Amino acid sequence: MEALAIGIDIGGTGTKFGIVDRNGNVLFSSEISTRRHNEVESFIDDLHDNLFPIINKAGGIGRMKGIGVGAPNGNFYTGTIEYAPNLPWKGIIPLAKMIRDKFQLNVSLTNDANAAAIGEMMYGAAQGMKDFIMITLGTGVGSGIVANGQLIYGHDGFAGELGHTIIIPGGRLHKGTGKFGSLESYASATGVTLTALEFLEKTNQESTLRAIPADDLDSKKVYEAAIAGDALAKEVYDFTGKILGLALANAVMFSSPEAIILFGGLTKAGDLILKPTRENMEENLIQVFQNKVKILISHLKESDAAILGASALVWDMKN
Amino acid sequence: MEALAIGIDIGGTGTKFGIVDRNGNVLFSSEISTRRHNEVESFIDDLHDNLFPIINKAGGIGRMKGIGVGAPNGNFYTGTIEYAPNLPWKGIIPLAKMIRDKFQLNVSLTNDANAAAIGEMMYGAAQGMKDFIMITLGTGVGSGIVANGQLIYGHDGFAGELGHTIIIPGGRLHKGTGKFGSLESYASATGVTLTALEFLEKTNQESTLRAIPADDLDSKKVYEAAIAGDALAKEVYDFTGKILGLALANAVMFSSPEAIILFGGLTKAGDLILKPTRENMEENLIQVFQNKVKILISHLKESDAAILGASALVWDMKN
Repeated sequence: MEALAIGIDIGGTGTKFGIVDRNGNVLFSSEISTRRHNEVESFIDDLHDNLFPIINKAGGIGRMKGIGVGAPNGNFYTGTIEYAPNLPWKGIIPLAKMIRDKFQLNVSLTNDANAAAIGEMMYGAAQGMKDFIMITLGTGVGSGIVANGQLIYGHDGFAGELGHTIIIPGGRLHKGTGKFGSLESYASATGVTLTALEFLEKTNQESTLRAIPADDLDSKKVYEAAIAGDALAKEVYDFTGKILGLALANAVMFSSPEAIILFGGLTKAGDLILKPTRENMEENLIQVFQNKVKILISHLKESDAAILGASALVWDMKN
Repeated sequence: MEALAIGIDIGGTGTKFGIVDRNGNVLFSSEISTRRHNEVESFIDDLHDNLFPIINKAGGIGRMKGIGVGAPNGNFYTGTIEYAPNLPWKGIIPLAKMIRDKFQLNVSLTNDANAAAIGEMMYGAAQGMKDFIMITLGTGVGSGIVANGQLIYGHDGFAGELGHTIIIPGGRLHKGTGKFGSLESYASATGVTLTALEFLEKTNQESTLRAIPADDLDSKKVYEAAIAGDALAKEVYDFTGKILGLALANAVMFSSPEAIILFGGLTKAGDLILKPTRENMEENLIQVFQNKVKILISHLKESDAAILGASALVWDMKN
């Protein structure tokens, strides 16, 4: 019988998991809360209780080649999650080992954006590409960099933190890291909200966003206002796209990818954000890189993508 | 008899070449002018006339495994030099093919900073490293990025242009590229001179540099003033180091190298530039990368390093 892979994507709020075949079909999937488990041990128990029934539905543990895990601050080399600010478990968590012990299956773990990059390479927009960069634009900004057909993990397993590169020196404070002017402080859902609040405060421009109490404003509302034609909301996306475009230009001059694949909530704004992104990327590229690099939107189903990416780690396992 | 490699390093002013053994000993070497040859054909003839005598001294063409060439804007995949602003030959030059035809030897070509990175990996400070970044700080800023033990060429062969990444958006104009605020516009010999001129103009601070006519000021004079204790000259290096440090932080968060190896004229300033570089790099790194990355100065002899790096390409040749 064809071997299957288990993919687990651990997010700050919830953890999605599913059984995936070689062709990238998610056969069964489910979800548990991450946030509810203050202790990682109870999380593992809950995962086991909810994952085992679907393993059995899919033909039993004997059909499973292994488990791939995508997690914030996940380290491929050590199988640990290290100092993840958005997870309830502090310090260094030997998650791969804990899952291996619980399920008696091989486990491969990496950070969520790296897992997404592997998913895109195997099933998505990056099929056949040897050099590309995956960028996830969600609550935060993650990235996975593929060069020479391999994911770049770096000497310590933490490469690909494009979200924390400094794009505007002395710029906006990132409360999670204490650094100023990082990409994530602007080109994330949180960043979009902060930019909207700043724009509302520093101008008198009319905007439907003024009717919303500051505490209720979020990137979804900015997005809705922008597609409804609100000029200030559109400027927020224009500004965000320009900063993203500058960051992409720097990334291109670093690793010269064939394409940059964007994934996540912010990409829903479509050309509102992509047009300024493209334009400012090209504007900042030296000639030899201009008009070469594709900016693509991931076409994987958002609900499946995280599971697919994590499961894709399994097919790379040596045994 | 042991096979030997020929290394050729093409610079804007001169071209160095030499015969190198497997252990990195430069057995014979010489140099011709690059600048004097407006036509690449006459350059190749001159190269042949000056290289052949040392090939014969080293045991004849039969002992030569191949030729490695480092050149600005050199493309590893195509063997061409493309639109190199500092060379006399414009457009796309099929240099590897021309040298192959002239010498009847296999030729491998890449850009000068990539060649330097390979040289460091084989004979220098990066021996045994799988993840490092080589940065050459000379008239311009070049870089070679090694990840997973391989040089990153990118999809088109042009990866590693860290010198052109934008560090200060809207900052200093780079006259060669027309872009604003790139690393090279600050952290190069040209950049140091421009910073000194700016500092002299915008302050009334005493400085021995004021005695030098603006047209005669160069980075060597700024360096001499700084080591003699001139405060303004020291501030120039401090400023330069801070910008370099920020660029290094971004590079580290991208590919998470074990070390960054610096090479070239600017490194002679020692701690005058390295201290602010280190400090500002650490200042801008998120926690997971802090106090991990070594900044090393290349210990290869400057006169040999370029030839060594280029020759090292030969040992990677498949045939």
